[in-house]
Amino acid sequence: MLNLHTPSPARWLTHVSANLNELLIDHAHCEKKAAGVAMNLLFAYVDRVELVRAMSAIVQEELGHFHLVLDLLDRRGVRFRKLPASRYAGRLHALANKEEPMRAVDRLLIAALIEARSCERFGLLRDHLGDRELADFFGGLFESEARHHATYVRLARLFAPEMKVAARLEELAVAEAAIISDGEEIPRMHS
Amino acid sequence: MLNLHTPSPARWLTHVSANLNELLIDHAHCEKKAAGVAMNLLFAYVDRVELVRAMSAIVQEELGHFHLVLDLLDRRGVRFRKLPASRYAGRLHALANKEEPMRAVDRLLIAALIEARSCERFGLLRDHLGDRELADFFGGLFESEARHHATYVRLARLFAPEMKVAARLEELAVAEAAIISDGEEIPRMHS
Repeated sequence: MLNLHTPSPARWLTHVSANLNELLIDHAHCEKKAAGVAMNLLFAYVDRVELVRAMSAIVQEELGHFHLVLDLLDRRGVRFRKLPASRYAGRLHALANKEEPMRAVDRLLIAALIEARSCERFGLLRDHLGDRELADFFGGLFESEARHHATYVRLARLFAPEMKVAARLEELAVAEAAIISDGEEIPRMHS
Repeated sequence: MLNLHTPSPARWLTHVSANLNELLIDHAHCEKKAAGVAMNLLFAYVDRVELVRAMSAIVQEELGHFHLVLDLLDRRGVRFRKLPASRYAGRLHALANKEEPMRAVDRLLIAALIEARSCERFGLLRDHLGDRELADFFGGLFESEARHHATYVRLARLFAPEMKVAARLEELAVAEAAIISDGEEIPRMHS
């Protein structure tokens, strides 16, 4: 699915289903961080008009989602708070090339893979959570993650030929699958 | 006006009027940076719901303005490009307290003063530019800068008592006036 090399292990769904409030708080942070990543890419490659326009749109959309999660937390009486993050995104970003133009390609493809994993997991939550409000909520976000994945892959092709981008996406997807298979002890969107 | 201690020197208007394309490119960068500042504040104080909501709105609005300027540049056949920034914002940020909670107060008040100066200068451009399209364009942004100024001052009061915020705003406004009186050689929104 969406270039991912492995589905989420079943233990992930069991783990987060038993810790939904913590998952929701983490999800809010993820939406905020997704907005931050898009803003950083906009700043880094501000002379690429197509990228700038796409990143602006993603910043605005992710901030919109961030507020949807904050509202959901409010309705459920769950206080939004700081939370130790999973190591997933940090481990992926550590793989990014240090030199341009491949650094741009890597940053965009890593963002693409994170969106793909979110998309896959929103699908799992939509299909399996007993809590209908939450299942519908995650289902409603599914489409935008898939769209963002496609946008990031398309933008990577501004910086390198299509074949090179495809090969690198394959490499990074293999690394992403290994990180996901390792898993983590804390219940997070990307644990 | 809006807590500013000195009006812009007349030489500023003369200088930028003779370099409108460069001013517009700088203006685009300023809108982008304003979005970045609001995003950084959102990240830094994410447990303050009122601040988070206000910063999200400002990020979205500033990115909208950024695109208005990009469109204007497009219509005028001016290529958006990187440009050395004025030293104004850097000199102001260097004045920020290093310790919380006064660091939060300072960051918000410095943002408030930058918005105030932009507002004053948009008013000057609206009232004095011979180019009606540009004069109307800047006039259209005037109100939002004034509103952002008020928002930032209000948010500073989340971190310190009103009297302390007022006294610090006074100090920073004096420093801002000195920086503006120095001026700069390059034609910029905040030179």
